[in-house]
Amino acid sequence: MDKLRVAVLGATGMAGQWFASLLEEHPYFELVALGASKRSAGKRYREAVKWIIPRPFPEKFGDLVVFDASDPESLPEKVDFVFSALPSEVAGEIELKYLKKGIDVISNASPFRLEPDVPLMNPEINADHLELLKNQKRWGAKLVKNPNCTTAVLTLPLKPILDEFGIEDISVVTMQAISGAGFAGLTAYSIVDNLIPYISKEEYKVKVESKKMLGALRNGQIVPADFIIEATTTRVPVLDGHTEVVYVKTERATDAEAVKDALNSFKGEPQLLSLPTAPERPVIVREEPDRPQPRLDRMNGNGMSVTVGRIEVMDTKRIRMVLVGHNLLRGASGVSLLTAELMYKKGYMT
Amino acid sequence: MDKLRVAVLGATGMAGQWFASLLEEHPYFELVALGASKRSAGKRYREAVKWIIPRPFPEKFGDLVVFDASDPESLPEKVDFVFSALPSEVAGEIELKYLKKGIDVISNASPFRLEPDVPLMNPEINADHLELLKNQKRWGAKLVKNPNCTTAVLTLPLKPILDEFGIEDISVVTMQAISGAGFAGLTAYSIVDNLIPYISKEEYKVKVESKKMLGALRNGQIVPADFIIEATTTRVPVLDGHTEVVYVKTERATDAEAVKDALNSFKGEPQLLSLPTAPERPVIVREEPDRPQPRLDRMNGNGMSVTVGRIEVMDTKRIRMVLVGHNLLRGASGVSLLTAELMYKKGYMT
Amino acid sequence: MDKLRVAVLGATGMAGQWFASLLEEHPYFELVALGASKRSAGKRYREAVKWIIPRPFPEKFGDLVVFDASDPESLPEKVDFVFSALPSEVAGEIELKYLKKGIDVISNASPFRLEPDVPLMNPEINADHLELLKNQKRWGAKLVKNPNCTTAVLTLPLKPILDEFGIEDISVVTMQAISGAGFAGLTAYSIVDNLIPYISKEEYKVKVESKKMLGALRNGQIVPADFIIEATTTRVPVLDGHTEVVYVKTERATDAEAVKDALNSFKGEPQLLSLPTAPERPVIVREEPDRPQPRLDRMNGNGMSVTVGRIEVMDTKRIRMVLVGHNLLRGASGVSLLTAELMYKKGYMT
Amino acid sequence: MDKLRVAVLGATGMAGQWFASLLEEHPYFELVALGASKRSAGKRYREAVKWIIPRPFPEKFGDLVVFDASDPESLPEKVDFVFSALPSEVAGEIELKYLKKGIDVISNASPFRLEPDVPLMNPEINADHLELLKNQKRWGAKLVKNPNCTTAVLTLPLKPILDEFGIEDISVVTMQAISGAGFAGLTAYSIVDNLIPYISKEEYKVKVESKKMLGALRNGQIVPADFIIEATTTRVPVLDGHTEVVYVKTERATDAEAVKDALNSFKGEPQLLSLPTAPERPVIVREEPDRPQPRLDRMNGNGMSVTVGRIEVMDTKRIRMVLVGHNLLRGASGVSLLTAELMYKKGYMT
Repeated sequence: MDKLRVAVLGATGMAGQWFASLLEEHPYFELVALGASKRSAGKRYREAVKWIIPRPFPEKFGDLVVFDASDPESLPEKVDFVFSALPSEVAGEIELKYLKKGIDVISNASPFRLEPDVPLMNPEINADHLELLKNQKRWGAKLVKNPNCTTAVLTLPLKPILDEFGIEDISVVTMQAISGAGFAGLTAYSIVDNLIPYISKEEYKVKVESKKMLGALRNGQIVPADFIIEATTTRVPVLDGHTEVVYVKTERATDAEAVKDALNSFKGEPQLLSLPTAPERPVIVREEPDRPQPRLDRMNGNGMSVTVGRIEVMDTKRIRMVLVGHNLLRGASGVSLLTAELMYKKGYMT
Repeated sequence: MDKLRVAVLGATGMAGQWFASLLEEHPYFELVALGASKRSAGKRYREAVKWIIPRPFPEKFGDLVVFDASDPESLPEKVDFVFSALPSEVAGEIELKYLKKGIDVISNASPFRLEPDVPLMNPEINADHLELLKNQKRWGAKLVKNPNCTTAVLTLPLKPILDEFGIEDISVVTMQAISGAGFAGLTAYSIVDNLIPYISKEEYKVKVESKKMLGALRNGQIVPADFIIEATTTRVPVLDGHTEVVYVKTERATDAEAVKDALNSFKGEPQLLSLPTAPERPVIVREEPDRPQPRLDRMNGNGMSVTVGRIEVMDTKRIRMVLVGHNLLRGASGVSLLTAELMYKKGYMT
Repeated sequence: MDKLRVAVLGATGMAGQWFASLLEEHPYFELVALGASKRSAGKRYREAVKWIIPRPFPEKFGDLVVFDASDPESLPEKVDFVFSALPSEVAGEIELKYLKKGIDVISNASPFRLEPDVPLMNPEINADHLELLKNQKRWGAKLVKNPNCTTAVLTLPLKPILDEFGIEDISVVTMQAISGAGFAGLTAYSIVDNLIPYISKEEYKVKVESKKMLGALRNGQIVPADFIIEATTTRVPVLDGHTEVVYVKTERATDAEAVKDALNSFKGEPQLLSLPTAPERPVIVREEPDRPQPRLDRMNGNGMSVTVGRIEVMDTKRIRMVLVGHNLLRGASGVSLLTAELMYKKGYMT
Repeated sequence: MDKLRVAVLGATGMAGQWFASLLEEHPYFELVALGASKRSAGKRYREAVKWIIPRPFPEKFGDLVVFDASDPESLPEKVDFVFSALPSEVAGEIELKYLKKGIDVISNASPFRLEPDVPLMNPEINADHLELLKNQKRWGAKLVKNPNCTTAVLTLPLKPILDEFGIEDISVVTMQAISGAGFAGLTAYSIVDNLIPYISKEEYKVKVESKKMLGALRNGQIVPADFIIEATTTRVPVLDGHTEVVYVKTERATDAEAVKDALNSFKGEPQLLSLPTAPERPVIVREEPDRPQPRLDRMNGNGMSVTVGRIEVMDTKRIRMVLVGHNLLRGASGVSLLTAELMYKKGYMT
């Protein structure tokens, strides 16, 4: 089967850079166009981008001329779909233009995430939500979203806990990486020898997105999960990798060993289908008391695994765990790509 | 009234340095001797100490010859009492030697903190616990402790909440400063671009020490508070100042404004007695969404205030707040000194 | 004598914040107006400013309404002179407006620094350069500049070396603090676990400004110093305080002790006149091999001293030293204020 | 040809971890034994090591039982040679024991580096120095050293400059990574928001080791290079990767383009022999003004290339450049391994 042709919108930002890196060699998709702001349009990618992610620059794309992502007419090549890593402020309007031109959009940006007919995907936990696309007819093409980084990372270990023990409520305190704010989202003077106990809109997103994603598909619609969830989100001086301290009150009694078994044995459809970006183990349990740590564990499973430690169960129904996941891989570009791979394999891209 | 004469044990460590700085000019106490390990004994303080705290070196004490803190016989001057900033591994045994020589000990070290006849002090919240000393007769002198840094900082805002709304349970997630591990407690390579989700023994200490300190004195004994408390403690790349995300389930309904009023108006006996080290406001509420921050708020009230922000009340009985307090001032040397001032004013030092 | 009335232009930036802090209580000057960008104009200072420097917010000025610094007509109060902490891109044009209105300007911004009739001041080293003002007649008021932060800090120890041993050439490698780039000048992701070996225009400024400042006043004009100077400037993850490794080739033979004596005994006119902001010792020599360090030494002399260590002399004519100075105090707001004090005492402000 | 069997001494430290990682799959060498301190001996490698380097743990070696490196009798397997990553304090004595047992030692530790009959290797620049081994007869086996990390990284670009333009003198100011001090060599509190302008013994090592390494082999002996070299070495808050600002006074006139050509086209014997660990380009020139940066450039050439930028030539004979190289790869384990590969290919290992 021929590879599908794809463009990345927002290719000069950090999520865009990860897309370019991940697509340098890909068995299903061929990256043929890189879109960015008007300011970058017309430059070669190697000049337009300030390459900053900890991966070598993909020389293969260095000479591609960046196009104006805000206008699908300026696409230099015919594409089968686009990945959107656009800033949220402009993403909604621009993504609509692509949809109206009949180009599918798989997007990391926040607009439309809560629309009832838009799948909000973390493929290991809700592959079946793609069925929403059958009723998503308002545009001429398909729109699929992935959640914000904090929720992507959080929901992965929540899924097996929900399935095996049921969840009544969740309380999460995050320590999020600098890169979650984007390359220029945080000034250096604000964060060295410091932390900031607030991330605008993040706590709301965690609450509503996790309930949708862990919700059930019934009669072609998502019924949100009915647990209670609250979040306090903070920013710490870590480059990449979000850490989250999670308390889960379960419906049914359990113990630490049962929780670890549930997490370690968890597999989703990406593993069953052997998708190229699927990590062998979506959730990795560490037994050492001082793990996970963001610098040491963020790249586990090529940045697609979530590592969990410090698991305790209090009073048989209250789980405490600490998790680390890569906010730009499992939390952004990686989960978008995995979603695209799932769609490809399941016949949603035709 | 003449000043009391005091020695500091463990004078070269970080808490010891803060003691020396705080005692450079003090209205009640005169620092006359500095004790440290055998390795430092015999050197002048300016040579023995690797001065590292963000305060000028107290030149006044620079030429004092350090004595061997492990042996009260080597005290170069007669003292009325000692402050102990000794490492916990050796503190218990050494402090006993001073007590047996009839020298009162006010100590920051962990041994004996949970003994029923030893007051565990944070003067704004439990000044009355000093009455335990009336029955503390097993040694020839008085032993008074302050709690670990995390608990000292935490219990200050908990006290007015307990008094006004009652507390059923508490869940706290901490992001603790490097200095909490002592000067050499953490290697640089382990924490840059990283955090460590574990601090040995800390979670246990938070639980038991807070229940003792917020307990009631009845018939000369402490009845521990009966709330449930759980803690997850982490280390972040911040020099000084612990940040804590706290959830409190109250017994009685409240709202955010009532909580803020209770915190802002809180005063303890140190404020009523105008003790020299007492901050005007033990708890300071900040309204900005992105406060408190450790680098910006740790020195509020000369490091003796705890700053609280992000206050919300969910379902009328669940408070969420974020606090910052200085782990070496309110959390160690400062709270020890405030305790000594309280004892002095209340006639416990005679 | 009545205090002079002063406004600060650029009052919300970091240098502006230091001006506000330093002027909270000042024996000569009264801060009566705070100017900032149009965006801030009309707000109270406490709302307009994002207070970030490590000093308490000066409550005294909190309710002052910020005026539009770009228009001297909007000054809410009559002032005797202004301090300018404006961004260099706009400073030139705006400062001219004040001069044309007859208001003296003492400025930290780069435009006009190299004009022959404009004194470029570091008061300990070139107090006599104020005489340039006698021939500075082109505007209706006086314009005085201080140098960029790197040069301010560098020239202080160079002056006694120049006077005592002569200088043939200088090579300096800097490790500059984040705050030198301004609050928003550097993104967090760019500098954590990293350094950047380049600061735009800085190396040129070091070269030309140091030669002017260390030049001699002859017949009412500055003859630049004739040493050769080269600089490599880098940015490191330090909040405040520039570190500079300096090699100086002297004209006359010397040795380490003679150099230390020259530095330690150095005094300038600010010390002779006991100016309020003058440090007792402009240059402090440390003997420990691992000093100076920016975090430990930047606040020496209230941020106005430069601390020097690692002094060696090779082949009798080549001095190696490492220095640390506070880039926002000796390097910006502090040196401006000291200049104003000097002008006040010497009768230049009438 | 069968693979040679090798043990690593000091296998739990950072250099030791890199050896284990680099030897997981190697075409010439098979890692069969891991030695460490008595404290670790007897444990499986996965329990003995605190894995901290940014590479996955080599599972292949996880179950190897660590032996007591201080005693060659405790070697569990016959080996052809050993890599020594022992701490310098104990390395000299221990390495002698292996030599006396007839086991060749390729060592990263400082003892014996300056012995006239011991090659001090950086294979691209002095492959011919291996000839010293022909006269190295005092032990029953061969001892080969690599230099300290700062010098390894520095000498690589110096070699083509020396060859093409001659060198009169060199002045280098370094900004060295935390890992250069070893995992526990630096406390966290000492370096956050700080730098330390001193590294014990380092400046002396840079001077003498570079002169030996860039010296010429004449009549079976090294004649040290006769340039003058001086160094100021500092520690900065960077995890890995040393940055060095280098001034070189050349004998013959040149210009920036000629210097860049010389650096970019430089190849050594490892490139000619296509050794497995040899980077394609030992020296990489970057044209952007803000490069090289340690976080972005340390892994160039798999950590074996040195990246150079900010090249200028003043007065035709004074080169300024800034370089970055990985202190644990090109500066330690990598250069040791490359040396072993060179020896293997050239027949020195028989």
